Amino acid sequence: MRYVRFGVTGETFWGRLSGDGVEVLSSAPWDPAATLAGQTYDLASIRFLPPVLPSKILAIGRNYRAHAEELGNEVPKEPLVFMKPPSSLLAHGGQIVLPPESNRVDFEGELALVIGKRGRRIPEEEAMTHVFGFSPSLDITARDLQKVDGQWWRAKGFDTFCPIGPAIETDVDASDLAIETRIDGAKRQSSRTSMMIFSLPRLVSWISQAMTLEPGDVILTGTPEGVGPIASGQSIEVAIEHVGSLSVSVA
Amino acid sequence: MRYVRFGVTGETFWGRLSGDGVEVLSSAPWDPAATLAGQTYDLASIRFLPPVLPSKILAIGRNYRAHAEELGNEVPKEPLVFMKPPSSLLAHGGQIVLPPESNRVDFEGELALVIGKRGRRIPEEEAMTHVFGFSPSLDITARDLQKVDGQWWRAKGFDTFCPIGPAIETDVDASDLAIETRIDGAKRQSSRTSMMIFSLPRLVSWISQAMTLEPGDVILTGTPEGVGPIASGQSIEVAIEHVGSLSVSVA
Repeated sequence: MRYVRFGVTGETFWGRLSGDGVEVLSSAPWDPAATLAGQTYDLASIRFLPPVLPSKILAIGRNYRAHAEELGNEVPKEPLVFMKPPSSLLAHGGQIVLPPESNRVDFEGELALVIGKRGRRIPEEEAMTHVFGFSPSLDITARDLQKVDGQWWRAKGFDTFCPIGPAIETDVDASDLAIETRIDGAKRQSSRTSMMIFSLPRLVSWISQAMTLEPGDVILTGTPEGVGPIASGQSIEVAIEHVGSLSVSVA
Repeated sequence: MRYVRFGVTGETFWGRLSGDGVEVLSSAPWDPAATLAGQTYDLASIRFLPPVLPSKILAIGRNYRAHAEELGNEVPKEPLVFMKPPSSLLAHGGQIVLPPESNRVDFEGELALVIGKRGRRIPEEEAMTHVFGFSPSLDITARDLQKVDGQWWRAKGFDTFCPIGPAIETDVDASDLAIETRIDGAKRQSSRTSMMIFSLPRLVSWISQAMTLEPGDVILTGTPEGVGPIASGQSIEVAIEHVGSLSVSVA
């Protein structure tokens, strides 16, 4: 199943994709009490919103060996985690805004996972039962500010720096999927999720050692090699096999 | 006025302190539509909750000169910002849990401010109109993990590492208030908010250059000198003149 959040005629809904339509849900799709509300909207009539309302967004640095190396970084011994604020979320079809504070803003295409069940100190072998589904995402990064700031709150946290969507795919094994990022249609990143240094269960388990993961929380799982700068007017697409394709542009 | 969030008889409310009672509010106190709901509970009957439901928590490092120096750090040229997850919030009267991953967990008493009005790229001279009020808080820090992790997601982000409350005080000029932290009753930090390197309006303005601040968002404004480790069984109190007194213990 694929789940979305969307706006239509001034209202906001959770929904489930069904052919050319979206069936309205009574609440967030990971809510066990969610039911079909009976309404359906035409896919062409809706405005996509980020398919998540997270209490927090975690992201992973250097989780593909070749990407760590392309930036001259060591391959980490434990997952390198940081946070992105919910205010940085951007929907499918949205526009990334380049802040004047940075001279170098990079794309980083990533597989995002969405938590469906609350947990703390989750063992690796139970980790995937806490995951609701997956979505394509971008960890947009002001590379120059990342180097000078120390903490990455701003380099990774500007408004529009976390595109995600269009939907959450729930029925997929995400351990070995093709992931590709294209700029104006040209392939720039191409890898497989099986190339991650730290697996999806390891990431969920690791983060939950420190903090309770809540339904709706998001983890961006790291980017493969091939990152590079973006410029005004470009279009960016992150396509993940069996998960979907996220398209945004640069304002 | 002082505003709280609290639990009583299995329900959760926003409220306004009034003598020995709490008057129930219809919604969050910074909501312009909030009204008194008519119920009042005895202060002795309620369980305090963190008086905030933030979409994000920002915190400031090294914002008092003597504290930067006591840890051997340079005084920053611009505010040093990082994020704490909402899952780290702890209420007045709560217990800090020391994680086995750390051998050195420090207290850092701080003035927290709560955003009341949405804003992005807020000029300094308008910044205080976006602030709803103030609360005592603690930026609990796993000092050893802070040094080894690079990013502070975990050192500052474990569950229970962000005690705040008991209330938000709205009718106070917070630019020059006495702030004190006591461990088991003994004074350990004692300074004034006027000793901050970056003023409250500067912090609000600076953070909002990168990200939209939402009503309910929280900014911890940095700690004075005198930080040190905490141990099981200790009680910690952060008292801020005209704002209130936060008490928690260490489990």
